[in-house]
Amino acid sequence: MALKFITAEEAANFVSNGDVIGFSGFTAAGAAKAIPTAIAQKAKAEHKIGNPFKIGVITGASTGDSLDGELARAEAISFRTPYQSHPDLRKLINAGKADFFDSHLSIVAQNIRYGFYGKLDFAVIEACDVTEDGEIVPTSSVGVSPTICNKANKIIIELNTAHPKELRGMHDIYEPKDPPHRKEIPIYKSNDRIGSDVIKVDPSKIVGIVETNRPDEVGAFSELNETTKQIGKNVADFLAHELRTGRIPKEFLPIQSGVGNIANAVLTALGENESIPAFEMYTEVIQDSVIDMMKAGHVTFASGCSLTVSPPMLKDIYENLDFFHPRLVLRPQEITNHPEVARRIGIISINTAIEVDLFGNVNSTNVLGTTIMNGIGGSGDFTRNAYVSMFTCPSVAKGGAISAIVPMVSHVDHSEHSVQIIVTEQGVADLRNKSPKAKMEAIIENCAHPDYKEQLWDYVKIGGEKHTPQTLAAAFGMHNKFAKTKDMKNVDWREYLHD
Amino acid sequence: MALKFITAEEAANFVSNGDVIGFSGFTAAGAAKAIPTAIAQKAKAEHKIGNPFKIGVITGASTGDSLDGELARAEAISFRTPYQSHPDLRKLINAGKADFFDSHLSIVAQNIRYGFYGKLDFAVIEACDVTEDGEIVPTSSVGVSPTICNKANKIIIELNTAHPKELRGMHDIYEPKDPPHRKEIPIYKSNDRIGSDVIKVDPSKIVGIVETNRPDEVGAFSELNETTKQIGKNVADFLAHELRTGRIPKEFLPIQSGVGNIANAVLTALGENESIPAFEMYTEVIQDSVIDMMKAGHVTFASGCSLTVSPPMLKDIYENLDFFHPRLVLRPQEITNHPEVARRIGIISINTAIEVDLFGNVNSTNVLGTTIMNGIGGSGDFTRNAYVSMFTCPSVAKGGAISAIVPMVSHVDHSEHSVQIIVTEQGVADLRNKSPKAKMEAIIENCAHPDYKEQLWDYVKIGGEKHTPQTLAAAFGMHNKFAKTKDMKNVDWREYLHD
Repeated sequence: MALKFITAEEAANFVSNGDVIGFSGFTAAGAAKAIPTAIAQKAKAEHKIGNPFKIGVITGASTGDSLDGELARAEAISFRTPYQSHPDLRKLINAGKADFFDSHLSIVAQNIRYGFYGKLDFAVIEACDVTEDGEIVPTSSVGVSPTICNKANKIIIELNTAHPKELRGMHDIYEPKDPPHRKEIPIYKSNDRIGSDVIKVDPSKIVGIVETNRPDEVGAFSELNETTKQIGKNVADFLAHELRTGRIPKEFLPIQSGVGNIANAVLTALGENESIPAFEMYTEVIQDSVIDMMKAGHVTFASGCSLTVSPPMLKDIYENLDFFHPRLVLRPQEITNHPEVARRIGIISINTAIEVDLFGNVNSTNVLGTTIMNGIGGSGDFTRNAYVSMFTCPSVAKGGAISAIVPMVSHVDHSEHSVQIIVTEQGVADLRNKSPKAKMEAIIENCAHPDYKEQLWDYVKIGGEKHTPQTLAAAFGMHNKFAKTKDMKNVDWREYLHD
Repeated sequence: MALKFITAEEAANFVSNGDVIGFSGFTAAGAAKAIPTAIAQKAKAEHKIGNPFKIGVITGASTGDSLDGELARAEAISFRTPYQSHPDLRKLINAGKADFFDSHLSIVAQNIRYGFYGKLDFAVIEACDVTEDGEIVPTSSVGVSPTICNKANKIIIELNTAHPKELRGMHDIYEPKDPPHRKEIPIYKSNDRIGSDVIKVDPSKIVGIVETNRPDEVGAFSELNETTKQIGKNVADFLAHELRTGRIPKEFLPIQSGVGNIANAVLTALGENESIPAFEMYTEVIQDSVIDMMKAGHVTFASGCSLTVSPPMLKDIYENLDFFHPRLVLRPQEITNHPEVARRIGIISINTAIEVDLFGNVNSTNVLGTTIMNGIGGSGDFTRNAYVSMFTCPSVAKGGAISAIVPMVSHVDHSEHSVQIIVTEQGVADLRNKSPKAKMEAIIENCAHPDYKEQLWDYVKIGGEKHTPQTLAAAFGMHNKFAKTKDMKNVDWREYLHD
């Protein structure tokens, strides 16, 4: 079957109001670009003449400005799942103008297959190569692309020459069968390959190919500062200690590390710590620091869902594919984040928290319990199934006006039952095998900022002798104080007792 | 090596203040009885002469009065994990006189092996048979017995003739290797057997055998009432509907069902619904209703961790082992509750909630956020990995003074990201692929009691336009009202806005 080349505008014209589209992309890496922008243009034109035009948007995770940014600014999104991080989209969601369904990333593909999301009209997939017999080679991420190709009625390809065809071989495409026919995910080491190097589709479903040459819209992370460096050092020291005691096996274990500056600082510190051997990563997002450490020999292999690296770093990888092909694999998020694999291979998970409470519950998503930041992403997939699960955050934010350690988190994404280790620049709280009161003491003494320790102890005292010494009437006293004064300090806990 | 028979008092005399003991038992089924009672006696005697005497207690889950009851009344417990349900122990914990570490049941065994719980001095195991070469046949539960036998320095057996030796063959004992050497758990169907029919230990570790003849201390459940019957019917109708739409495959899927009256009502309703085919159970606790349905042909096989059935039902099973041996298997809780297996075979999980909030978060453990009830048990293991995850509860308690549907749960055990279906006697809220606001509408309209609907809508209105319309200052208004007036009704939300 001959490939049919079309323009982005022609592709957008296939799409109708109310359609549900699955787009490639996991972070800005490998996200569709030209077609969502053209759809946004079409939406604006339709809105201008008074017609409704919104689509449902399913992706791997967040995407770039050409997808979430353009569609958000066009107010062209009816619902969005499973994760987002674009400021314009976040604003739209928090204003109630787009529905957002925040989901563990490992379950998105199976929920599509199970039919829980309803119909799927189109898959829009960025590829570095596509063949007439329906072999699609993804670019810098995999996300949910295999499943949306499989389940969508029609497929449109963005053939992006910014990614070389020689990427073929870096992907490991595997889609499990559904119950009651599912077998094991046969990964036993980070570098096991279990699938195909392409997404295979019925070529008659490919209704058009849009040629592009556009780089991934990956933003830069800011430089490390003293706080993030100290958090990184605390994580590395803790893991070195666990190795010495034998609680982590001498072979070490695969690292999963979240996204952002703290994650970069943690990886850098692991590389600098001489007690920690070179290690593998079984992670979600592969950032610049992973590639740097691979070149330095500290990371021997990385399995991930996306190459979310800066443009110069991606250029470096593409120019040295002989070095990187044997050291990198990109898999669907259903596999990178799969509970079965995470638990079997025994990952060490390191993710960031927005806030942590005295009893070890973690908020990763909702600021002040109401306003979505990005979403839970893969943090829950990893945390729940890790050998050791860690959360990191600076002890304070906004120049000290916000304490990340609060009596009760305003939204729970990871419960006390799954969270083992909390790390701030102040220190490390090991919550394993501790009662709520013992957790509380470890968190206040080791992780809270000195400016807040006394206030947190005062809170606990009003609770009296309970299994979990919360006082519901006062639990959000620090959040309420911030809402009123823009500072969490100087809460008078007594005022909550006289209601 | 000859078996050494001793008395329970001699066994207790091996135990010193500060020892950590792993006991057999998952619910009262198969729990050690004579030895913990003798240890409690020893503790009382020591306390009388002014000596400290407390032990750390690790079990499978809850146990019977002879273990948790006796040790609690003797104030002989320093810490207790992972689950309990005895009123005397609950009182001790909530009074701050024993530390309780509430844990997902699937991770207990691996945490013991990983060394996270520290030393393990003794394993005290109820058996129906034991051989000179170290083969131990458990009784009516498996729990964490294989792992505590493996890791404890010394083993003491309670050889209980109330359980017949012919039970041998009902257990499937399998202990995974630890990372980085772990392989798949090779269960693909509920009735796959993967291990040994005995726990094999180094016989030199068995320091004594105490002969007993004591029945399991399993309490009776109360009769079904109109509310629990209606909840059961709502669950069955929902699952029948999912079957019709094809979202559940035509073969149906294995059922996991929690403990108690609602679970019994749900299973009864599934049996009575003609649209639902005979099914298998891949569950934790096997209750009377499972056995009744097995005899009626509605349940074809049950895999579980314990036979928590009434004394006449256990007698019936023991007298008809030829019928039950091919239809029942008892496994370690690490396997019955394993995320890998639950997700692979696609269980339908049905567990009970203490309270549910408008955004789909579930509290299973802490009353008013402070007082432990029993613990999270296996509910988290199953919910997170289920094909469809359901929570059930009556919409009100205490004659209507407590609404199970609240603005914000006072403790989160299962987050919005994992909870799919809420069922009360009022109806069913399907939360899949819904934004927080859409979940809220479904829960209020379909699940809340009519007495509370208006009050819940009024709460939401004060939140205004947010992704998650919580108002932190008022979120526990219904809990606070109950604390003051013993009734959650007639909250004046406006008073929270004038702070």
